Amino acid sequence: MKVAVLSGGVGGARFVQGLVEVAEDVTVVGNVGDDVEVLGLHVSPDLDSILYALARLNDEERGWGRAGESWRALETVGELGGDTWFQLGDLDLGLHIVRTQALRSGVPLSSVTLRLARALGIETRVLPATDDRLRTWIGTPVGDFPFQVWFVARGHRDEVDAVRFEGEADATPAPGVFDALTQAELLLVAPSNPYVSVAPILAVPGIREALASRRVPAVAVSPLIGGRAVRGPADRMLERLAGGTSPAHVAEQYAGLIDALVVDEADADDLDGLGEVRPIVTRTLMTDLDARKRLAEAALGAVVA
Amino acid sequence: MKVAVLSGGVGGARFVQGLVEVAEDVTVVGNVGDDVEVLGLHVSPDLDSILYALARLNDEERGWGRAGESWRALETVGELGGDTWFQLGDLDLGLHIVRTQALRSGVPLSSVTLRLARALGIETRVLPATDDRLRTWIGTPVGDFPFQVWFVARGHRDEVDAVRFEGEADATPAPGVFDALTQAELLLVAPSNPYVSVAPILAVPGIREALASRRVPAVAVSPLIGGRAVRGPADRMLERLAGGTSPAHVAEQYAGLIDALVVDEADADDLDGLGEVRPIVTRTLMTDLDARKRLAEAALGAVVA
Repeated sequence: MKVAVLSGGVGGARFVQGLVEVAEDVTVVGNVGDDVEVLGLHVSPDLDSILYALARLNDEERGWGRAGESWRALETVGELGGDTWFQLGDLDLGLHIVRTQALRSGVPLSSVTLRLARALGIETRVLPATDDRLRTWIGTPVGDFPFQVWFVARGHRDEVDAVRFEGEADATPAPGVFDALTQAELLLVAPSNPYVSVAPILAVPGIREALASRRVPAVAVSPLIGGRAVRGPADRMLERLAGGTSPAHVAEQYAGLIDALVVDEADADDLDGLGEVRPIVTRTLMTDLDARKRLAEAALGAVVA
Repeated sequence: MKVAVLSGGVGGARFVQGLVEVAEDVTVVGNVGDDVEVLGLHVSPDLDSILYALARLNDEERGWGRAGESWRALETVGELGGDTWFQLGDLDLGLHIVRTQALRSGVPLSSVTLRLARALGIETRVLPATDDRLRTWIGTPVGDFPFQVWFVARGHRDEVDAVRFEGEADATPAPGVFDALTQAELLLVAPSNPYVSVAPILAVPGIREALASRRVPAVAVSPLIGGRAVRGPADRMLERLAGGTSPAHVAEQYAGLIDALVVDEADADDLDGLGEVRPIVTRTLMTDLDARKRLAEAALGAVVA
């Protein structure tokens, strides 16, 4: 079965790691809205989280980056007066260096990503939503910030009033994205932050439309458990921007785009207002690979259900 | 006493390390002809050798780079299909990243170098010969190569027929260089390769002239011991390009620019042909800091002699 999944970083990457174990033909469409130029290097945190998870190189405890990472280059950068607000490990740097060099020589991000995936022994197709420059900006009571400034440098402490995507009007889906979405037999939205992980993917002209005009089932997995984010600010954002953190508030973010929403057992008593979106209740905490596979199977189950 | 010293990388850096211990007001004018863009980073190997030696961070055994270095980023680069012909350690990378970012933002190399030196706690003024792009090319029987391609990638196995400096016509001395050379009470040439370490410095219009019109003593230290290079291809180059490796052949490279040449005891019987260049015979092998200080003292001695 051909599956296309929209995914953000850490949570999405864990889901994708389980998904590729239970589905054969998976295309991942990753968020690039939180890409950032740091220390002169192009960093694609969400794509990297997906690559590292698929290559089983990800650090499970820290949740992001590579296992067995070291920080010697960054320590030197700090000693020499350079920026260290964005954590780049030595192993991670190797990837950023290779990608940045390829991008500078004119290779599109999608080609670089496929090349990196191949070098890491990954068979799954991992694509950025777009090869164009698309950047998430966060509007807060104290000003507008580029995503990573808000998220990392300011520790996402500022409440979010608005999210916008610089470059969205001119962006086009990366090669392979549109075909993957229109030829898929199942469309999935990973358990990622709807506002800052999935929305920047949907903001690329053509992608939202492909989902809206689908002829196959589309299933999102809620990133919340009992109305709380496992990590990150998704719950605070939903509370402030949508007025609540129930499954209905999550589903609302994908209005017209999904047919079912996978929710946690902890939210089973809070299923009002889902309308035509069918709830699929299961355990959603992705503690290990088995849990990730089970969650992916629950989402896949939507097709045969 | 104000001292200005022209220096290449490893050997020069060791000499400079001793020099600053025995002289108070030292300005180092470093070679940038072997600078290289590698993995998208601007690397200045000779300036770095000088900085690392002065900060006592240099690796004495390997002879270049930093002590306690690790290679995790570069290993990742290799695993991902990137170039690994030029060895960049994790600690070293931190410096290259900071410098490259500053250069890209428009800061001249001399300012970056002073900034790095300050961050490393170095009080000695370390200046690149020029802020302009100047690159050493090596002409060999099998073609012309950029310096680092000949030196590192090809292991300097090709005989050298010619050395040229791309950009020399348009280069100007970096801020501070001309003043350092004209205000110095002693001019020194470190024990570096005359063709590929010192010549690229002298190639910057104004620098050779400053030495030629000096009113103070100028002393070079021969990089050869018993007619052999301690490391690197200086002896092979002298043999092929100058017809021999005696002190006279070394002095000939600095014709009109020096008043004395420090040579090793092993060359004491081979002092013919030095003309007006006075030989200073001493032990020149710079095994440790004491040896480096003694060698620097021998060179300084030229003023009072």
